[in-house]
Amino acid sequence: MEATRALARFVVRSRFDDIPAAVRHEAVRSLVNWLACALGGSSHEAVSSALAALTPFSGPPLASVLGRRERLDILHAALVNGISAHVLDFDDTHLRTLLHPSVPVASTLLALAERRPLTGADFLHAFVLGVEVECRVANAIYFAHNLNWYITGTAGVFGAAAAAGRALGLDEQKMTWAFGIAATQAAGLREMAGTMCKSYVHGRAAQNGMTAALLAARGFTSSEQAIEAPRGFAHVLAIDPRFEEITDRLGERYAIALNTYKPYACGVVCHPVIDGCIRLRERHSLKPEQIAGVELRVHSLALTLTGTRAPEAGLESKWSIYHSAAIAICDGAAGEHQYSDKRVRDPAVKRLRELVTAIADTSLREDEAHVAITLVDGRITEQHVEHAIGSVENPMSDQDLADKFYGLADGVLPAAKIQELLEKCWLLPTLADVAEIARIAVPKSPSVPV
Amino acid sequence: MEATRALARFVVRSRFDDIPAAVRHEAVRSLVNWLACALGGSSHEAVSSALAALTPFSGPPLASVLGRRERLDILHAALVNGISAHVLDFDDTHLRTLLHPSVPVASTLLALAERRPLTGADFLHAFVLGVEVECRVANAIYFAHNLNWYITGTAGVFGAAAAAGRALGLDEQKMTWAFGIAATQAAGLREMAGTMCKSYVHGRAAQNGMTAALLAARGFTSSEQAIEAPRGFAHVLAIDPRFEEITDRLGERYAIALNTYKPYACGVVCHPVIDGCIRLRERHSLKPEQIAGVELRVHSLALTLTGTRAPEAGLESKWSIYHSAAIAICDGAAGEHQYSDKRVRDPAVKRLRELVTAIADTSLREDEAHVAITLVDGRITEQHVEHAIGSVENPMSDQDLADKFYGLADGVLPAAKIQELLEKCWLLPTLADVAEIARIAVPKSPSVPV
Repeated sequence: MEATRALARFVVRSRFDDIPAAVRHEAVRSLVNWLACALGGSSHEAVSSALAALTPFSGPPLASVLGRRERLDILHAALVNGISAHVLDFDDTHLRTLLHPSVPVASTLLALAERRPLTGADFLHAFVLGVEVECRVANAIYFAHNLNWYITGTAGVFGAAAAAGRALGLDEQKMTWAFGIAATQAAGLREMAGTMCKSYVHGRAAQNGMTAALLAARGFTSSEQAIEAPRGFAHVLAIDPRFEEITDRLGERYAIALNTYKPYACGVVCHPVIDGCIRLRERHSLKPEQIAGVELRVHSLALTLTGTRAPEAGLESKWSIYHSAAIAICDGAAGEHQYSDKRVRDPAVKRLRELVTAIADTSLREDEAHVAITLVDGRITEQHVEHAIGSVENPMSDQDLADKFYGLADGVLPAAKIQELLEKCWLLPTLADVAEIARIAVPKSPSVPV
Repeated sequence: MEATRALARFVVRSRFDDIPAAVRHEAVRSLVNWLACALGGSSHEAVSSALAALTPFSGPPLASVLGRRERLDILHAALVNGISAHVLDFDDTHLRTLLHPSVPVASTLLALAERRPLTGADFLHAFVLGVEVECRVANAIYFAHNLNWYITGTAGVFGAAAAAGRALGLDEQKMTWAFGIAATQAAGLREMAGTMCKSYVHGRAAQNGMTAALLAARGFTSSEQAIEAPRGFAHVLAIDPRFEEITDRLGERYAIALNTYKPYACGVVCHPVIDGCIRLRERHSLKPEQIAGVELRVHSLALTLTGTRAPEAGLESKWSIYHSAAIAICDGAAGEHQYSDKRVRDPAVKRLRELVTAIADTSLREDEAHVAITLVDGRITEQHVEHAIGSVENPMSDQDLADKFYGLADGVLPAAKIQELLEKCWLLPTLADVAEIARIAVPKSPSVPV
């Protein structure tokens, strides 16, 4: 069967009982991580700027802006919560394609749940299906595509459309149209790196996908082969798409089982180095002033993507393996604080950064690294990291995710709310109304019932 | 100077006095044609379906939906009026690139004028600048690009951003960001031909361009080389872009001077054939039953794009040169009515359609055709059309445009309003508040002042 229709049929016909328990649990973990990132990013100036620009045009304010007091219509909420959830570059990653699965799908579904009651089970089901659709589309196109496009902006819109379409109860015909309306909005240029437009593209995938499902529900027509047609999405935005990736074992294996979460607030290829530096720091109680040199051996992609030697701003430092090693040794951490303008300009961090050298080693995998630290007394101490924390082989535990959640929500919500919210998230499959989560995830509940 | 910044500087610095009188008049003619198309398309099911889907999410209803009673926030109005204005395939064409210049720019500006008062002169100025920007971007990329993309969806968003940015008074820096935010939303696949998504893409260019300008106004950042960077708009969506097309003689010549308007509601390459058939019909008072055969010689593109021999639905028949010749002979016209499902299925039209043969002639231009009609009595009568009506060399007159306006607005607005509206349009440069046009262009003024 053709790819577009096969995906539509799958999304429409899937039953919750078909979803294995381990897959459901991974979906809950994804949601915890997504919500943590959205709360952590909620005060970023990209979010404030988007709100200032677009709030005057908001429709009925039914939906929460996570971590903030504003309320928006559900389409704008999907956009703004999507921006928040991605702006720290701390959200989840489908490692094969570098797609960030949760932003388009969760941002859409939670906003939708504030207009149209959705049980935890239905939410979880639609979430798993949305992630499945976007990851399969991404698997078919990611190779050369990723050089030019943000794949979460292009493939992600299909995930948002699938999830919203499922929640709205679209039939197969309308789901096919929703994918077509999604396809013709797929966008997002890599050129936007380092600007607010990067997170905009991610949030817009959520908003555009929801729009596609809403239009299709009202009979708005599109091509019915939008993904696979000669002038359709895959052939136009990619080279040699592999359509078998879309249909192979559909409904038997679930992409969300391969989802990964970042322990550190920076490019994922820096993570094994940070692991190694933190382990050496802890083992030897290292102080910055003891360090005479740091030698890194890493996968070549780490140098290509994060080779910035002397970053000048926080956002830039997230893509510097030199800064990442330096702050891991100084602070024993690599959270949002370590990638602030302040830490980037700190003289001790700067001194350490300049002592770091890095070389590519073709024998290493992407999630592997070797760190050697030379001390001022001449001793050398080494650490080999087989799989970085947060990789598929060495995943963050539920407790790690809870710690990340507390860290990112701290200062955004009162402590009691953070606790309550995390408990609700873990109980997602049993919730009668998922909108409860959105209502708790704001600093103060709205004074007027909505 | 780089293309993106050059365009931003041009839009910000341009003075109304710089715009030649002939260019201003062509802008007024474009607006008359755009408004005619929007009124004519206003009851199309694509418009009704979009309104049913999106009205529940509209913000403050400050803006008119042309030809209808609904009101929307200005972003949604730009989208829906853009859909109306394109859905009949009757709007203007920049022949070199096949861009439809007015839809993104006029749909944006008129909606914006309903929130933020705009004089006729300022409106006209911003309109000319928006069209200039989108046509220059289109000129740089259209060759291979047009095989895959709707260029009004991709280049059009820059036009909408330029016009909205000018109306909002953006400085050069913010205009540059607006172009970046526009670039990363450029989308619209050719695969959507024949579906509602074609007009959606056109309306969305208006809405996305306005969004880009609103975000930039609030400091939302983007790349500052969004058009020309290696991973920017032009290199990613086109092959061998010609950036000199963007900067060459900027401010000296104006693309809108080359705008063309369709006398007939179908693909522009059918137009010379229709001209020829109507002239022969009138000269010999031909009746359908007299016809034994119709031989067309046309440019090869006419056969490639409009080669459908036996269309089954109205929308499909707009891309059939056989149907176009048949209805021109039967009806002496080629308006929206001639491309209805009813006329497509009429037995007399069907019989005539089957008598038409067409061959490509490499000696003919795109706006040229030769028609030979053989009568049942054996006589043969011929007509050569040098330049179709509506081409640059044989433009529709102001009166032709007025007639088109009356024809499309008939039945949508009361006769007195149609008259008043057209008078206001011709007086555009002198209007104190352009929103007046939007307020007249609805069947009934809102009962509650807004």
